[in-house]
Amino acid sequence: MLRKDVLTPLGIIIGIAVIFLAIYIAGGYDAFLTFISLSSFVIVFGGLIASLFVGFGVSEVKNMFNVLHTSFRRKEVPIQQFIHTLVRLARTSKMDGMIGGLEKEREKTSDPFIQKGLRLVIDGYEEDMIRKVMEMDILAMRKRHARGRKIITKAGELSPAWGMIGTIVGLVLMLQQLNNPDELGPAIAVALITTFYGVLLANLVFIPIANKLELLTEEEVFLKEVIIEALVSIRNEEGPAILKDKLQMYLIESAEGTALLDKLEGDRTYEQKEV
Amino acid sequence: MLRKDVLTPLGIIIGIAVIFLAIYIAGGYDAFLTFISLSSFVIVFGGLIASLFVGFGVSEVKNMFNVLHTSFRRKEVPIQQFIHTLVRLARTSKMDGMIGGLEKEREKTSDPFIQKGLRLVIDGYEEDMIRKVMEMDILAMRKRHARGRKIITKAGELSPAWGMIGTIVGLVLMLQQLNNPDELGPAIAVALITTFYGVLLANLVFIPIANKLELLTEEEVFLKEVIIEALVSIRNEEGPAILKDKLQMYLIESAEGTALLDKLEGDRTYEQKEV
Amino acid sequence: MLRKDVLTPLGIIIGIAVIFLAIYIAGGYDAFLTFISLSSFVIVFGGLIASLFVGFGVSEVKNMFNVLHTSFRRKEVPIQQFIHTLVRLARTSKMDGMIGGLEKEREKTSDPFIQKGLRLVIDGYEEDMIRKVMEMDILAMRKRHARGRKIITKAGELSPAWGMIGTIVGLVLMLQQLNNPDELGPAIAVALITTFYGVLLANLVFIPIANKLELLTEEEVFLKEVIIEALVSIRNEEGPAILKDKLQMYLIESAEGTALLDKLEGDRTYEQKEV
Amino acid sequence: MLRKDVLTPLGIIIGIAVIFLAIYIAGGYDAFLTFISLSSFVIVFGGLIASLFVGFGVSEVKNMFNVLHTSFRRKEVPIQQFIHTLVRLARTSKMDGMIGGLEKEREKTSDPFIQKGLRLVIDGYEEDMIRKVMEMDILAMRKRHARGRKIITKAGELSPAWGMIGTIVGLVLMLQQLNNPDELGPAIAVALITTFYGVLLANLVFIPIANKLELLTEEEVFLKEVIIEALVSIRNEEGPAILKDKLQMYLIESAEGTALLDKLEGDRTYEQKEV
Amino acid sequence: MLRKDVLTPLGIIIGIAVIFLAIYIAGGYDAFLTFISLSSFVIVFGGLIASLFVGFGVSEVKNMFNVLHTSFRRKEVPIQQFIHTLVRLARTSKMDGMIGGLEKEREKTSDPFIQKGLRLVIDGYEEDMIRKVMEMDILAMRKRHARGRKIITKAGELSPAWGMIGTIVGLVLMLQQLNNPDELGPAIAVALITTFYGVLLANLVFIPIANKLELLTEEEVFLKEVIIEALVSIRNEEGPAILKDKLQMYLIESAEGTALLDKLEGDRTYEQKEV
Repeated sequence: MLRKDVLTPLGIIIGIAVIFLAIYIAGGYDAFLTFISLSSFVIVFGGLIASLFVGFGVSEVKNMFNVLHTSFRRKEVPIQQFIHTLVRLARTSKMDGMIGGLEKEREKTSDPFIQKGLRLVIDGYEEDMIRKVMEMDILAMRKRHARGRKIITKAGELSPAWGMIGTIVGLVLMLQQLNNPDELGPAIAVALITTFYGVLLANLVFIPIANKLELLTEEEVFLKEVIIEALVSIRNEEGPAILKDKLQMYLIESAEGTALLDKLEGDRTYEQKEV
Repeated sequence: MLRKDVLTPLGIIIGIAVIFLAIYIAGGYDAFLTFISLSSFVIVFGGLIASLFVGFGVSEVKNMFNVLHTSFRRKEVPIQQFIHTLVRLARTSKMDGMIGGLEKEREKTSDPFIQKGLRLVIDGYEEDMIRKVMEMDILAMRKRHARGRKIITKAGELSPAWGMIGTIVGLVLMLQQLNNPDELGPAIAVALITTFYGVLLANLVFIPIANKLELLTEEEVFLKEVIIEALVSIRNEEGPAILKDKLQMYLIESAEGTALLDKLEGDRTYEQKEV
Repeated sequence: MLRKDVLTPLGIIIGIAVIFLAIYIAGGYDAFLTFISLSSFVIVFGGLIASLFVGFGVSEVKNMFNVLHTSFRRKEVPIQQFIHTLVRLARTSKMDGMIGGLEKEREKTSDPFIQKGLRLVIDGYEEDMIRKVMEMDILAMRKRHARGRKIITKAGELSPAWGMIGTIVGLVLMLQQLNNPDELGPAIAVALITTFYGVLLANLVFIPIANKLELLTEEEVFLKEVIIEALVSIRNEEGPAILKDKLQMYLIESAEGTALLDKLEGDRTYEQKEV
Repeated sequence: MLRKDVLTPLGIIIGIAVIFLAIYIAGGYDAFLTFISLSSFVIVFGGLIASLFVGFGVSEVKNMFNVLHTSFRRKEVPIQQFIHTLVRLARTSKMDGMIGGLEKEREKTSDPFIQKGLRLVIDGYEEDMIRKVMEMDILAMRKRHARGRKIITKAGELSPAWGMIGTIVGLVLMLQQLNNPDELGPAIAVALITTFYGVLLANLVFIPIANKLELLTEEEVFLKEVIIEALVSIRNEEGPAILKDKLQMYLIESAEGTALLDKLEGDRTYEQKEV
Repeated sequence: MLRKDVLTPLGIIIGIAVIFLAIYIAGGYDAFLTFISLSSFVIVFGGLIASLFVGFGVSEVKNMFNVLHTSFRRKEVPIQQFIHTLVRLARTSKMDGMIGGLEKEREKTSDPFIQKGLRLVIDGYEEDMIRKVMEMDILAMRKRHARGRKIITKAGELSPAWGMIGTIVGLVLMLQQLNNPDELGPAIAVALITTFYGVLLANLVFIPIANKLELLTEEEVFLKEVIIEALVSIRNEEGPAILKDKLQMYLIESAEGTALLDKLEGDRTYEQKEV
């Protein structure tokens, strides 16, 4: 929830630093140059892009960079602000009447999910209907995210394969032109660099990022489920106290529960002054 | 939806170009010939075909080329035209009466799925029945596509295996007849080319195409679900305005939603002039 | 449906021919002998049988050869004859009365699935009951086939493993007794032949046959579902015309649909003359 | 059902004999000693036990030997005796009255599953309740067996990994101390023996035994389902004839069906004389 | 249930001892130093941490050490004390009246799950409601544990990959700077140590610990299900005798059942004296 996604770039930097450090320990400064190879780069990146073009559509390929970017951005899910809003909604609903008060709030809210939910509450839909409509929204988001994540997962499978293709190309070329056994070592070294690129890219970038994207989706789903519970509570005119209890039941199961609830207490005090 | 599947051949061309470029960087023009091997070609393609004959039936093997072709064809899903048709159907239904108006439309429509749905609406079936019958149609399509896709997936698993079989054959022959250590390098090179063919074929062609076919199926399913919603809306005589709202709810979840809806707006203006 | 399973032996013959051709291209006639190794044969086949004995029971091991045989036999599913029978049943039921007419047909039918279904129709069971009982039959068949297929799937996993075990044994023996570096090449060649046997057996025989068996099961299930629809239609006394419509709805989704329905038309004409 | 699990030890003996035969063909008597290595044995068995200690609890590790033993024991599932008992129960129930007759039988029966079922029948529970309670029993057995099987499955995954660890250790030691290239071969041979142990153990023992345990569970589940059908039949006072029909419907789907039913006929005759 | 998780550290110690013993057998005391490599350590641990930073959030990474710690701690699930409590609750409920007696017990209980359940019983909720609320609690725990376990599972997949990356780096450096063939052996040895670290870490630590965590979760779930049954029994005022029967039905299916029930008998005697 309160995760700073500075971890993603930090992790990649640490990963590269670790490689550099190990190379330095084992081979000194001069060894770095060994690991730079244009043809390896061309095969792994070019081949990966080629396979992704064959396997996905224009929109997925374009979207891939947005998806990668998502996992890099410092993401502060505004849980406090959301709970703030939800508790204020419950109070407004009690004080100003359901329809007038919520309509005013709906115009102020910037979150489209809460807006949609409030419209359903204002329109007087049943609890079951509100749940069903909002959960279809969550399902749609889940499917959309899964689709965006799939290209990253596939990239994680394809980049070691292209690394291997590049190494085979390198070995074939090297073995074919082998005149002098002394050149064998360096030539194999060059061939192996492509595998190194492919495996590193998969295990430091694609596989972990696909995992982080899944976690981010789960968190967004969790947040939206909390919002649904809050909206249903408002719809049933249960009042801010019971709403807080319900949120508590939901938050208690997540690791960040206690911290969040402490903050909620603080917000409520602040809120009461504000009103 | 609006994807141009020019991406599939483009991706394969890029993939081959990348290989050529890398070979050129590492070995110059003369190196290309090294990668051409008749016996490697015979083992990978022949073996793959043999395994597919054992594992599938005549109709699947014949169908395989259609399926591959599908992913190569420039595919313009006529989403605009479909929405056009659906909104016109809703208007016709309101204006000319359900039965007469829809019957006329049904004869004009070329899409068999819409035709079937319209017949159900004209025959006065309940919403539940229309949904059930049409969704069975979607399920049947999904199963049919999955069956066509399966041979591509299997080809993606079998081609590296045949590449490996070919390399083992090459190594055995080479090692058996080894008289002169100087010939060792080139002989291993030749043996490795079969693995190269098998792995390249799998990772540039079969695995990505199986993925693209899955995406295409998902899009067709999505389109058919939009059509079902539209037909149900027409059956319930909800009118073109509510129909547009429903389509919006469905389209909003896909990445192309906004663009599509903008176009829908344009169509409606155009439509109104036309009528 | 109308598949000739001559494809299975044909595929295996092509696979072996491909190997022979590639060996001939690369090594000439004399090279064939290199690929014959008694100890490799003993390890791969003996080891595979040993593992299957440990992993399965007497009945499964015995049944394995029947199962393999199934996928080799030229299998002509008598879809035409079945549809013939089903449409005649519908007509008989209309003409001679449900009970008397069907009883006569039941005695003529040789298919136990249709016989069982007819007994249920004659005994006057409800549609739901007929469906439930017959679908339990399909489920039982599916489970029985899955059980027969499992030993083939396992053989496909175990034969490369035994190939690898044999190669390790060969390498250990060879490296242990290594006196003369000139013997290294041929000795490795011999060790690799076991891997060759194991991988070839898995990818040309076991893995594809397991796949074909799955397809055959799906087709048999499909055929039985068509029969259930026909029996329900007869039970509801819907008449041969509606029965034809229902079969059409079912057949249309399979690739062989059009061909089959054309034939059905022919049969009906033939039938009418006959009656 | 009537499987003799003499197949398990037989399979393992055949597997070892096959290895011995292949070694003998390729290397003569003296070669056997090559495959005996204390340090390889220590790494594979010790490492496997270490990983299982980390991954499981005391009870699972203790239970592992029972589980292995299960698949070795000659297991004669007393299907005949069970059917004997079930048909006698049906007759007793008819003749001596439900409660008195069954109570007497319950005391004679040694099978706890039948005993439990009879108690439910005697206590006059509904068919649905009997089914539900007895099926929960089956589910519990399935879970218990799955838990016991899991350690074998894991052992099958971990033993090749430990084989590989041992081979890496051997290679590192060998390469580090390499003074004389002539020693290279024998040293690699020794390193490979650990992989040989690990792969053999997995593919001859653990993977197949995990499979056999699954089959044994399925058979026990099948037997218990037959018993449930019989108990429900007795509860509904359907009589021995209908009971036989029901058992037939259940048994017919298994490969051993015909044989079993033939024996059942025999038993019934015997039974009638006995009564 | 009564597992001592001393097995986890014991297993890891045995695993390391096994490696040491095998090294000692094969290479003597001096060989140990060969297996210590700073750059291998940096690559495997540093790279693993880098990938986990990219793939997870701050809270998961922090939580990882707690999770690992969990599987090391000697864990004595207080099954006896729980059953003690549950049976006492049933008796109290009977003797002191439901509301007063349970309220008093609730204050004494330290287990939050039992406390929550007792509040529901005291508040007079229906059996279905109590089950639903408590099972949602179990589901939440299961999800929370699965999330904590996932980072361990991923570490088990990523550590061999980083071992391989390190070995490739080592091979490239070694082959590049190869002047003297005599240095080849020791250099390859150094490169292989990284793979050794990665594979050992995965197969001795991460994979088995992920498995143990799953078992611990299953046991906690089982315990909570027993508690739910007990609470429902108390709510329905069935008395301590029937409660014992129910617990018996639940416990009988676990391997520790008999032992536990024996102890329960003992407790009951003790209890009766106490009251």
